[in-house]
Amino acid sequence: MRFLDPDEQLRIIKRGAEEIISEQELLSKLKKSAEKGMPLKIKAGFDPTAPDLHLGHCVLLKKLREFQDLGHTVMFLIGDYTAMIGDPSGRSETRPPLTKAQVEENSLTYQRQVFRILDSEKTEVMFNSSWLGKMSGEDMIRLSALETVARMLERDDFSKRYKAGVSISINEFMYPLIQAYDSVNMKADVEFGGTDQKFNILMGRGVQKHYGQEPQVAVLLPILEGLDGVKKMSKSLDNYIAVEDTAVDMYGKLMSIPDDLMWRYYLLLTPRTEGEIDGLKQGHPMDAKRALAFEITSWLRGAADAGRAAEDFATKFSQREFPENAREVVIKRDDAGTLLDLVVESSEKLKSRNEAKRLIAQGGVLIDGERVTDINSPIPDTGTLRLRIGKKEFVLVKLS
Amino acid sequence: MRFLDPDEQLRIIKRGAEEIISEQELLSKLKKSAEKGMPLKIKAGFDPTAPDLHLGHCVLLKKLREFQDLGHTVMFLIGDYTAMIGDPSGRSETRPPLTKAQVEENSLTYQRQVFRILDSEKTEVMFNSSWLGKMSGEDMIRLSALETVARMLERDDFSKRYKAGVSISINEFMYPLIQAYDSVNMKADVEFGGTDQKFNILMGRGVQKHYGQEPQVAVLLPILEGLDGVKKMSKSLDNYIAVEDTAVDMYGKLMSIPDDLMWRYYLLLTPRTEGEIDGLKQGHPMDAKRALAFEITSWLRGAADAGRAAEDFATKFSQREFPENAREVVIKRDDAGTLLDLVVESSEKLKSRNEAKRLIAQGGVLIDGERVTDINSPIPDTGTLRLRIGKKEFVLVKLS
Repeated sequence: MRFLDPDEQLRIIKRGAEEIISEQELLSKLKKSAEKGMPLKIKAGFDPTAPDLHLGHCVLLKKLREFQDLGHTVMFLIGDYTAMIGDPSGRSETRPPLTKAQVEENSLTYQRQVFRILDSEKTEVMFNSSWLGKMSGEDMIRLSALETVARMLERDDFSKRYKAGVSISINEFMYPLIQAYDSVNMKADVEFGGTDQKFNILMGRGVQKHYGQEPQVAVLLPILEGLDGVKKMSKSLDNYIAVEDTAVDMYGKLMSIPDDLMWRYYLLLTPRTEGEIDGLKQGHPMDAKRALAFEITSWLRGAADAGRAAEDFATKFSQREFPENAREVVIKRDDAGTLLDLVVESSEKLKSRNEAKRLIAQGGVLIDGERVTDINSPIPDTGTLRLRIGKKEFVLVKLS
Repeated sequence: MRFLDPDEQLRIIKRGAEEIISEQELLSKLKKSAEKGMPLKIKAGFDPTAPDLHLGHCVLLKKLREFQDLGHTVMFLIGDYTAMIGDPSGRSETRPPLTKAQVEENSLTYQRQVFRILDSEKTEVMFNSSWLGKMSGEDMIRLSALETVARMLERDDFSKRYKAGVSISINEFMYPLIQAYDSVNMKADVEFGGTDQKFNILMGRGVQKHYGQEPQVAVLLPILEGLDGVKKMSKSLDNYIAVEDTAVDMYGKLMSIPDDLMWRYYLLLTPRTEGEIDGLKQGHPMDAKRALAFEITSWLRGAADAGRAAEDFATKFSQREFPENAREVVIKRDDAGTLLDLVVESSEKLKSRNEAKRLIAQGGVLIDGERVTDINSPIPDTGTLRLRIGKKEFVLVKLS
């Protein structure tokens, strides 16, 4: 098997990654892999208790797919062992133990979703019960001896809970070690995860070393913000886009995200290079957002459905938001200038340029259904604009 | 089977015990046992890595024997499971893992010693590997979920180490739970241990409750001071009397302990009642010490050997410590009065009563080889005393 130049591979892997521990080691593994013609083994762990994937997971899956396209193998690990144990301390009601049948069902649900993104030919699906289920109590004690209480209490969430007097059951100290022991059994070269997994993934390095293996490289990816643009995307916060959402829902949700977030989604969820993204920033944000919504929907739900969703969105929007009897004005493209100019020119109700500025800044102006808050925003190069000014003024602007 | 009145049993068990958690529960168990004619099951755990027993262990064994004499059953637990695992963190060089053969050998060494004290008919010897060895990794995780990190860090030694930055391996948090789980498997009614075992024994109560059992009663016994009278008796401090010491060594070591300690040994290692001990305090300390040395040696090594050891001690002492050509003085018993009077009467070298006082207080005066430091100490009612005053004056005092 032939591989791309290791430095070029590293460049691709680094794009959008938050941290790599360490780049040096990764480069050296990539070089060895290229020399021997042997793919690297990339570990990524998934929790079978929550098999609904959303865009937050796709950040990871997309990066894994890039690794596959570079010729490497993904080991998709389903952490069924601890899922079947559940939370024996009974402290968490949200983690009831899963049966074998539930794990199998959830695993199929997972696979149906991930293989929209991953290359099934280059993916091994693994269940950690196949090695952890063979461990004796004695093995578990030996494993537990590999770390110290103080080190565990350094983990951010444990430290906070301990200080706040929120109880931590001892089994919770076992789970990072078990996860680390998975890396030993899988002989992982690289482990992928969100930045919130840093502690656990680094523990894998230590435990692999203990077992005489070369430690895995940690590739940490950023946590994706949800639709609100502030909090982590998650099902429980209801700010998510599920991989299995319909194309129409997905497209609509993507059209609703704040502009800032759009550029982050471009970086983490599309193959666009930073140069291309910079180019899009020169154009109108609405155009960029439509393109993003189409691109992601098309990636996950197929181009045909994405196309229909885009049409559907435009139609529904115009029906819902814009009266048929709107006043029409004709403005010369050259007179329109910035958004502020356009609004001042078109309105019959605003009393001053300053009032127009305030209204735009407060989000009171929409073009083709999209809120635009920058007074200097350029005007789209379209024949007709549906301009809404404040709550009551609707103007059909024809640019000539 | 018929039992003594439960209140009377409780009185016997309480003698010399530091703490019982709780007396109420123990009384209730004793009552149930007496009603049903069913002996209680008493758990006591021993560590097979150190099978040399000393008088410190005898405090516990004597109390267990009292329980047996009351009709109950002792479960002598050899903690071979963790001994065979050793310290997998490799932090302690003093805890290498034991092989099965070593455990068996140490267990025989134990039994040879304990059955000098315990009634073998009422003792079951158990090995915790017989149930713990069947635990799976999953069982171990479930067990570890029964306690919290915060609770473990409350244990005195863990708390000190954590604060001092001395590492605690996570497996060390497992051991108290494993010990507690032993109580479940043994269905223990009562667990015995030193006060240093309080945390672990109480954990047994919690874990038994979790498994639907009535919690065991904790009977905590004081830690015996070693020959120095200050530090805990232990092999590593070399301040111990081993159960397997020869009668001669044992007798000699007992004769060397400080007076204060003697009364504590009487309380914790002999069947003397507090009334009897008070009686002994009225007599001469040397008589009491000889009686104690004889009693304990006789208990552990047999009366014949103890008698020979006592004779041997007296002979050796007189040969070694007292010159044959010592000056003789005859003093009327009535003139002798206190030790101070006797010394002043007998000495040719001391220049004043105050000098005699100082010398006695500094430990410079011995009667029959025993140091006596109280100037008001009464004079033994013996015909002849070997009196040593300071380093050089030896006087054979004949009381008439």
